[in-house]
Amino acid sequence: MKRNLDASAADIAADIEALAVITDPDRPWTRRAFSPLFDQGRAWLKTRFAQAGLTVATDAGGNLIGTRPGRETGLGTIMLGSHSDTVPDGGRFDGIAGVVVALEVARILDRRGAGLRHDLAVADFLAEEVSIFGVSCIGSRALAGMLPPDWLARESGGRDLRQALCDVGGQPGGLGGPLRDDLRAFLELHIEQGPVLEREGIGLGIVTAIVGITRVEMVVTGRPDHAGTTPMGARADALVAAARIVTRIEAKAAALAAGGRHFTATAGEFDISPNAANVVPSRVRLLIDIRAEDERDRDAFTDWLSALRAGEGIEISARRISDNPPVRMDAGLVARLMRAADGLGCEHRLMVSGAGHDAAFMTRLCPAAMVFVPCRGGRSHCPEEWAEAGDLALAAEGLADTVMALDEEMEG
Amino acid sequence: MKRNLDASAADIAADIEALAVITDPDRPWTRRAFSPLFDQGRAWLKTRFAQAGLTVATDAGGNLIGTRPGRETGLGTIMLGSHSDTVPDGGRFDGIAGVVVALEVARILDRRGAGLRHDLAVADFLAEEVSIFGVSCIGSRALAGMLPPDWLARESGGRDLRQALCDVGGQPGGLGGPLRDDLRAFLELHIEQGPVLEREGIGLGIVTAIVGITRVEMVVTGRPDHAGTTPMGARADALVAAARIVTRIEAKAAALAAGGRHFTATAGEFDISPNAANVVPSRVRLLIDIRAEDERDRDAFTDWLSALRAGEGIEISARRISDNPPVRMDAGLVARLMRAADGLGCEHRLMVSGAGHDAAFMTRLCPAAMVFVPCRGGRSHCPEEWAEAGDLALAAEGLADTVMALDEEMEG
Repeated sequence: MKRNLDASAADIAADIEALAVITDPDRPWTRRAFSPLFDQGRAWLKTRFAQAGLTVATDAGGNLIGTRPGRETGLGTIMLGSHSDTVPDGGRFDGIAGVVVALEVARILDRRGAGLRHDLAVADFLAEEVSIFGVSCIGSRALAGMLPPDWLARESGGRDLRQALCDVGGQPGGLGGPLRDDLRAFLELHIEQGPVLEREGIGLGIVTAIVGITRVEMVVTGRPDHAGTTPMGARADALVAAARIVTRIEAKAAALAAGGRHFTATAGEFDISPNAANVVPSRVRLLIDIRAEDERDRDAFTDWLSALRAGEGIEISARRISDNPPVRMDAGLVARLMRAADGLGCEHRLMVSGAGHDAAFMTRLCPAAMVFVPCRGGRSHCPEEWAEAGDLALAAEGLADTVMALDEEMEG
Repeated sequence: MKRNLDASAADIAADIEALAVITDPDRPWTRRAFSPLFDQGRAWLKTRFAQAGLTVATDAGGNLIGTRPGRETGLGTIMLGSHSDTVPDGGRFDGIAGVVVALEVARILDRRGAGLRHDLAVADFLAEEVSIFGVSCIGSRALAGMLPPDWLARESGGRDLRQALCDVGGQPGGLGGPLRDDLRAFLELHIEQGPVLEREGIGLGIVTAIVGITRVEMVVTGRPDHAGTTPMGARADALVAAARIVTRIEAKAAALAAGGRHFTATAGEFDISPNAANVVPSRVRLLIDIRAEDERDRDAFTDWLSALRAGEGIEISARRISDNPPVRMDAGLVARLMRAADGLGCEHRLMVSGAGHDAAFMTRLCPAAMVFVPCRGGRSHCPEEWAEAGDLALAAEGLADTVMALDEEMEG
């Protein structure tokens, strides 16, 4: 028997809808960072934060922070949050659900009359999505002291990022090291952006790790023969060779994933040359996106990839072009979240995030963890993106319970 | 013991070089139809035809024809020829070798003091290569009465084809049916544009058929899932499905070709969507070029292709977008060419042309056949294209012998 919730699914749904309508009307749901619409969304959030009794400020990294002061000074802060910017033609929930639910947690605490010992902070991180400046997670990187200084000189639409950061109320001059040392825990809710929870009929995912992302560029080189006059046995067809590689990548990745740890490998970019009807393809470029919970799987895969050989006349080169390591969520927070879900009678499962999130950078500052809610069809970054307000409310309740437990148990 | 040749390898080499240097200096060897350089090449050919005693004229289809009158009137004409236009960054031999060798045959006959009963015609067909008007074999189609009338309205560079045809001396008003009914035989020499003769160390190929060319467009549709959050087993990856199709096409085509008849199938165009690093590919478009000597092989292959099925969540559609039937060379001419090669002690083999040629259209007017000479590395349509003058001279000698035998044997 589930208990009555202090969380309000109606309030959560209303807040999400209120932000959703602040969109480019021709491309719902679009509210990109550094746009006037983004500023409009931020203005609405400031009001809404204030209505919930939070003290609102923008930090040097352009993050909007609403603070609910604790009873004791100097104990530090428990932060919850996510981001309110979207991709072009994006959805209403990616990031936004995490900001709205963080705000709902503050309201739940008020409904419960709970005065925490610690400060509670609700964060809307700046520009988590790849923005007009071509990079992601600007706000959480800045907060963690991990924003590469040269990014401030990136230009777009007649401004550099330094100016754009000022325009949202940030202070580029204040960046460098971590922006604060008072954080004791960070929790982020996000839609899963994948199909697992929905398929398994489970309402809550508790994230144990955020995958590392490695990108390998492969070039397969053959010979551009005449498609009509070159017998089948006399060709060095780069497309045929690359096609064999693609099927082998899929099989190898499926075998690694069968080991139980999160692993994906995807040939997402694939271009052939000369791409002419009557010429045997002479060159294929593939970009392989590799996501591993465990670096051993990544290494096993990239070693295997580098050792791939093709038939006579075909050359293969493989080059690692980017590499971000996996990040583990805090085991203590994961245990507390499980306990809270159990307390709610909410079926849950542990899972790994296959996408990057602000929480990955927050691990540099304090223990951090994430929860996922199901999204319809696993769809995200598209107008159809959808999560149920009931699932969000249940997660908000669990997060509120977790915050209260942390507040009691945590050392100052 | 081979006999001394009447053909002059030196003259052939000199003529090829003389045409080669009439090229765009920045893109050797480029002399595209309807360009001022093409007109320059034609002017040189007119002079060279006249020097060989030929009567020079341009027909209504823009073909340059040099005629060596026969002893008897009304017996008809034996025609030899090919084309002098090139592709961009093309070679010195594709087409050109056939025009120069046809001219050399006329000179051989003079050296032999041979007055033929039939007229002999040396042809430089207009615009065999795909020209600025986007179509091929304009001259030979026009001569055979097969130029689609609406092509004359095609525009490029401020002219329509009708005007461009006038500008090279053609008469668009005179087109419609076949331009002449006096042709008794047509012979075309061409470089092989493939690797077979060189690999087998054979100097002469006698062509039995020109393949039919069928193009099939396939579209493979899956689902654009997130590359990080969608487990390997939960995807509908259009690239993985299309890769399996490409490897199966290659295996099926190789199996058909192993039957002994010329057959090739090539996925030459291949485009994926959305072609983004972090999205599972949702759509692949392939264009498959199918070349068969025998329509039964083509049908077996296209039926097999249409019946291909993929895994769950993947849809495949296949659409035939063009279809040109194979053309058989005249068996009597093939036999005469073999006899001539035997008479010269020239090792030869029967083969099928995997590329289209003017001779395919000439079969509509009279018995037609082709001979191939080896080209280095099988390369064609590239600056490195090369054929040996000695091979061309031997072929010219064989063609001259064939012409003389035909002239004696053929009924009027």
